[in-house]
Amino acid sequence: MPKRFTPDEYAAGVLSGNRVLLSRAITLAESTLPSDQALAHAVMEQVLPHAGKSIRIGITGVPGVGKSTFIEAFGNYLLEQHGKKLAVLAIDPTSQRTGGSILGDKTRMETLSANPGAYIRPSPAGKTLGGVARSTRESILLCEAAGFDVIFVETVGVGQSETAVHEMVDFFLLLMLAGAGDELQGIKKGIMEMADAIAITKADGANLHAATSAQAEYQGALHLFPLGASKWSPKVTVCSAYEKTGLAPIWDAVTEYVTLTQQNGYFLQRRQEQNLHWLRHSIRQQLEERFYQHPAVKVQWETVSGQVTQGQKSPFAAAAELFDLLS
Amino acid sequence: MPKRFTPDEYAAGVLSGNRVLLSRAITLAESTLPSDQALAHAVMEQVLPHAGKSIRIGITGVPGVGKSTFIEAFGNYLLEQHGKKLAVLAIDPTSQRTGGSILGDKTRMETLSANPGAYIRPSPAGKTLGGVARSTRESILLCEAAGFDVIFVETVGVGQSETAVHEMVDFFLLLMLAGAGDELQGIKKGIMEMADAIAITKADGANLHAATSAQAEYQGALHLFPLGASKWSPKVTVCSAYEKTGLAPIWDAVTEYVTLTQQNGYFLQRRQEQNLHWLRHSIRQQLEERFYQHPAVKVQWETVSGQVTQGQKSPFAAAAELFDLLS
Repeated sequence: MPKRFTPDEYAAGVLSGNRVLLSRAITLAESTLPSDQALAHAVMEQVLPHAGKSIRIGITGVPGVGKSTFIEAFGNYLLEQHGKKLAVLAIDPTSQRTGGSILGDKTRMETLSANPGAYIRPSPAGKTLGGVARSTRESILLCEAAGFDVIFVETVGVGQSETAVHEMVDFFLLLMLAGAGDELQGIKKGIMEMADAIAITKADGANLHAATSAQAEYQGALHLFPLGASKWSPKVTVCSAYEKTGLAPIWDAVTEYVTLTQQNGYFLQRRQEQNLHWLRHSIRQQLEERFYQHPAVKVQWETVSGQVTQGQKSPFAAAAELFDLLS
Repeated sequence: MPKRFTPDEYAAGVLSGNRVLLSRAITLAESTLPSDQALAHAVMEQVLPHAGKSIRIGITGVPGVGKSTFIEAFGNYLLEQHGKKLAVLAIDPTSQRTGGSILGDKTRMETLSANPGAYIRPSPAGKTLGGVARSTRESILLCEAAGFDVIFVETVGVGQSETAVHEMVDFFLLLMLAGAGDELQGIKKGIMEMADAIAITKADGANLHAATSAQAEYQGALHLFPLGASKWSPKVTVCSAYEKTGLAPIWDAVTEYVTLTQQNGYFLQRRQEQNLHWLRHSIRQQLEERFYQHPAVKVQWETVSGQVTQGQKSPFAAAAELFDLLS
C-alpha cells in the first residue's frame, strides 16, 4: 500500500485536479481498512462542497455490445465537440483480485485514455455490492471535485450492480445490439425499464438496416410503458462507434433530459433522494452485517433458514426465533 | 376483539374448512399484539404442513380497469368450469381504519361471495408494507390449509404493495385498459416487467377493436423484453367480464405457466426463494425498526439526514456517525 497523506493534502490535491492525488484518494475510498475509511470520510468532508456539478451517466450493456469502443467514441466526441472534461469509472465484476483487469488490455480506450481531458478509472467490483456502491459513489464525488463535468459509470449489464448504479447517476444509458434475439436474454429483467435512453450500437455497413428497424421497434415498445416521475420519455437511437455516427443524438437526449428535469425539479429532487437512499442503504447494510455475523445467529442460521426454505417453518416465526437468540 | 381459541382449536377449524375459524385465524395473523402474534405463530406451525398446494395468482390494475367485475367473472368461471375452490385476498390501501371498506359496498363481487366454493377476504393495508406482507402471506397459507386450490391476491396497482405481492405469488396478472394513454400513467414503473400475463379488460362492444389492437401492441412490446428466470414468455389476452368472454385464455396461460415452471424446476425454486426472501425481509424490518426507534438515533436523525440530503455530508460518513451513537 502506498503511503498515506493528511486529509488536507488529499483534498488540496483533488481540488487542484492533480491526477495522482485523485487516484490515491479513490484508492483510499475503495479500501476496507477502518483507518482508511476514517481518513476517506475526512477527505470527503472537505471535497463535498466542491462536488455535484457534473452530469452523471450510467452506461450498461452485455459483453459483445461494444461498450469500450462506444465509450471511447462518445467520450472523444464530448471532449472534442463540447470541450467536456470526462471521468470514466468502470466497474469490473471480474477484477476482484487484480484490482483492475478491465483495463489490463492496453488497447482498450487507447485514444481516450491518452487525452488529457479524460480520466479513466477501473473499479474492482469488490466482495459486496455495498462496497462497490460506496467506493463508486465517493469516486464520482472526488472526480467532480477534481473538475470533471461529465462522469460515466460503466457496468456490464448482467450482474447486480446496475440497480445500484441507477441509484447514483442522473441518466441511465442502455447499449443494445440490433436483432432482438438470444443476446437479449443476457440482460437482466428490469434493466430495460430503468433506461432513459437505449442506443443500438454497431449501426453501420450491412447492420444499419437491422439497427434502424430495432430502433423503431424499441421506440414503439417504450411508448407503451408508463413514464416515471421524471416525466421523461425514453429515447432510442442508433450509433456506430466505428464510423463515429449517431453520437450527437445521444448527447442531445442527455441534455434534453437534464433541461427537462432541471425545469420540473426532478433533477435536484432525485439527487437528494439518492443521497438519502445511500444513507439508509448504508445503515441497513451495517445492521444486517452485525446480525448475520452474530455468533448465535451463525450457529442457528443453516438449520432455521433451511426449515423456512422447505416450508416447514413460517419466515416470520423464524425471524422472531432468531431475534430471541440475541437477547 | 373476539375471544381467543387455543392453537389446536384454530388449526383444527382451519383444516376442516370451517370459514368462521379461518376468518378468526386470519384476524389473528393480522393482529399486531405480541400475544396474538405468538398465538398466530403457533397456529401457523400446525397448518404449514397442509399448506402450499394452491396456485397463487396476484391480480393488479389501476382503479377503473374493472378489477372487481373481472375477479367476479374469472372467479365464477374457475368455480363453474373447473370445479376450483377459490379464496380472494383483497389488499385495500384505503381501509386502514375500517378494516375492510373495500367490500363495504355490498354489490361488489355479489355472485362470487354468495358461492360456497369461494371465500373473499379484504385485508386492511395496515400501517407498514411489512405488516401487509406478513398477514397476507400467512392468510395465503391459512386458505391453502383450509382447502382452497386457487388464491387470488388483489392489489390496486398504484401503490407499493405490488412488489411485495409479486414476491408471494406464483403468477402475476396485470389488468389494463385499451388505449395506452393517460390511464397508463397511473401504473407504477416496473410493474409491467413483473407481469406474467396482461389482460386487456372491457373488450366488448365498441371497445373490442381498440382492445385487440392494444393486445397486438403489448404482445409485440413484451417480446422485445428479456425473459426472466422462469423462461416464460408473458401472454397478452383480451377479455370482457360483462360478456364473460376471454376468461379461458387467461386460465390457459396460468396452467401453461405452471406446467412449464414445474417441468423446468422454477416453480418450486421460486417458492423456496420466496420463503427465504420473507425471512430476510422480516429480519431486515425488525433490525431497522430497532435502529430508527433508538432514542439517540431519533434525536439526531433529522439533522443528520438533512445534511446528507442537502449533500453536506457523505451518506457513508453519516451512517458511521449514527452507529457511533449506539455504542
